[in-house]
Amino acid sequence: VTPERVAIAGLGLIGSSIGAALRRAGSYVSGYDPAAPACEAAESLGHVQSASTDLSAALRGAQLVVLAAPVAAILDLLQPATVAAPGATIMDVGSVKGPVVSHMAELEDAQRCVGGHPIAGKETSGAAHADAALFMGRPFVLTPHETTTPETLETAENLVALLGAKPIVTTAQEHDRVVARTSHLPQVLSSVLASNLLPGDAEYAGSGLLDMTRLALSDPSLWTGILKWNRMNITSELRRAAAQLELLAAQLQRESLPEVFDFMESAQDRARELRREVAA
Amino acid sequence: VTPERVAIAGLGLIGSSIGAALRRAGSYVSGYDPAAPACEAAESLGHVQSASTDLSAALRGAQLVVLAAPVAAILDLLQPATVAAPGATIMDVGSVKGPVVSHMAELEDAQRCVGGHPIAGKETSGAAHADAALFMGRPFVLTPHETTTPETLETAENLVALLGAKPIVTTAQEHDRVVARTSHLPQVLSSVLASNLLPGDAEYAGSGLLDMTRLALSDPSLWTGILKWNRMNITSELRRAAAQLELLAAQLQRESLPEVFDFMESAQDRARELRREVAA
Repeated sequence: VTPERVAIAGLGLIGSSIGAALRRAGSYVSGYDPAAPACEAAESLGHVQSASTDLSAALRGAQLVVLAAPVAAILDLLQPATVAAPGATIMDVGSVKGPVVSHMAELEDAQRCVGGHPIAGKETSGAAHADAALFMGRPFVLTPHETTTPETLETAENLVALLGAKPIVTTAQEHDRVVARTSHLPQVLSSVLASNLLPGDAEYAGSGLLDMTRLALSDPSLWTGILKWNRMNITSELRRAAAQLELLAAQLQRESLPEVFDFMESAQDRARELRREVAA
Repeated sequence: VTPERVAIAGLGLIGSSIGAALRRAGSYVSGYDPAAPACEAAESLGHVQSASTDLSAALRGAQLVVLAAPVAAILDLLQPATVAAPGATIMDVGSVKGPVVSHMAELEDAQRCVGGHPIAGKETSGAAHADAALFMGRPFVLTPHETTTPETLETAENLVALLGAKPIVTTAQEHDRVVARTSHLPQVLSSVLASNLLPGDAEYAGSGLLDMTRLALSDPSLWTGILKWNRMNITSELRRAAAQLELLAAQLQRESLPEVFDFMESAQDRARELRREVAA
C-alpha cells in the first residue's frame, strides 16, 4: 500500500533518500527543511515534489509525516508536526530512540506516533548524496511506545516494506543499548584511530587503516548529538573498551601470550559468527 | 633486473604471492616450508617451480632468499639461511622489524641481510589466496641495519620494484613505531569491537560494523606473535587509546559537548588528511 501524501521534515541524506524512494513508489512527497538551500536541492534533484521552509505548509494534508533530522531537532518538531498534520502517522528516523519515544509518549496525540531508525547511511551527507535504494535489504528498527496504536505501527511497517528494508520491532531502550555496541562504539573507535595519526603515517596506510578510519569522516556535529543522547549506554561501552585495552596492555607487558591469543581467537570467532548471521 | 634464482622460505599468503610475482617476472623460484601440504599447494598452484621441506635443498643456488614467515620463525631461519645460500641476499618480510634486524646485525654475514615489510595482505591466509598483484601500488618498507651493504639494499629495492610496490627506506625502530599506530592498534580495536558483540547484534549490522570488524577475522596466532614482538610500542598505543576513551566517557557524562565535538572534528580532519595524502 503506497501512502498518497507523505511529508518529510528534514531534507538531508536520509530524508531525501526516503523521499526519492516514496516518489518512485507513487506517493506525492512534500518536504520541509529550515534551510532554503536544502529545500531547493531536494526539489531540483526530484527527491520531493515540493519543498518549503514553512512546516505547516509542507505537512498539510499528509497521511504520514517522517521526521528526518538530528535528535534535538526531532524533539522540537514533534508537537508542531502533530498540529500541522492532524490525524497523520508521525514517525521519526533519528539515531537514538529513548529520548524521542519518551517525548512522543507525553504528547496529546501519542497514539499516532512511532519511533524508527534505518540502519543505513553514508559518511557523506545532504540531498546531493541521496539514494532511493539506500535502505534496500538494510535493517529498519521500529520502536512503538505503550500507546502507539496497531494502525500506526502498521503504517510504519508499510513504509519499511516500500523502502525494501527489513523491519525489527523492539523497544527504544533495547535499540539504544544495541546500537551503542554496533554503531556508536565503532564510530568512536574509528575517530580515536584517526585522531592519533601523525604526519607521514599515510605512507604506511594499508586498506585496513582506510577501512578503520572511514567512519571518522562522518559529520562531527551529528555525532556529537548522537553521543549526547545515548550517553548512558555509550559511556558504559567506552569504559568497557578502555578496560579491555588496559588489560591487553598488561597481558602483553608481562608476556601472558596465551591470554592474548584467547582474546584474539574469541574476537575472530565473533567476527565470523557476525558474518554467518548477516548472510543467513 | 630480474634475479635468476630466488628462494622463498615460508609458503603462506605473502611468500606464495611474492613467488607468483617473481615467476611471472621470469625468475626461477624455489620454495621452502616445514609443512609438506604448504609445499604441495604452492607448487601445484604454480606460485613456485619447486618446493621442499628441506631448507638447504630449497635455498641452494639462490641469489636472493626471502624469509616469509611469522617473526619467531624468521629468527630461527636467519642463520641457517646464510649457510644454505652462501653469498645470497637475505631479506625477510616479517611484520615487526626491530627483533629481526637486531638478530641480522649479530650474524657473521650481517652485511648481506636486510629487513623488509610489505604493507599488504588479506584477512585470509595460505597459498590458495596468493595473488601476484598483492603488492601493486602498496608501500613496502625496507629496513637496512648499520652494516647492510648498498648492494644488498639495491637487491631488495629491485625486488620491491618487480612487485610493483613503493619502497620506503627507514630504520626498524621507526617502522615499528609507525605500524603500532597504523596497523597494530587498528587490528586490536577491530578485535575489541568483535569480541563485545552479543547474539542478535547481527540483526543491526550496518556496513560500518562489518568494515570495522573485518581485521578481527585475521589469524589470531600470527597476530599474537606480532603483538608480542612489538609489545613496547603497542602497549603505549593501547594505553593512549584507553585514556582517550576514558576521557571521552567523562566528557559525555558531564555533557561537555564542545569538547566532544572538538575531538570528533579533529578526527574527521585527520581522516580526510589521510585520504588526501594517500591519493597524492
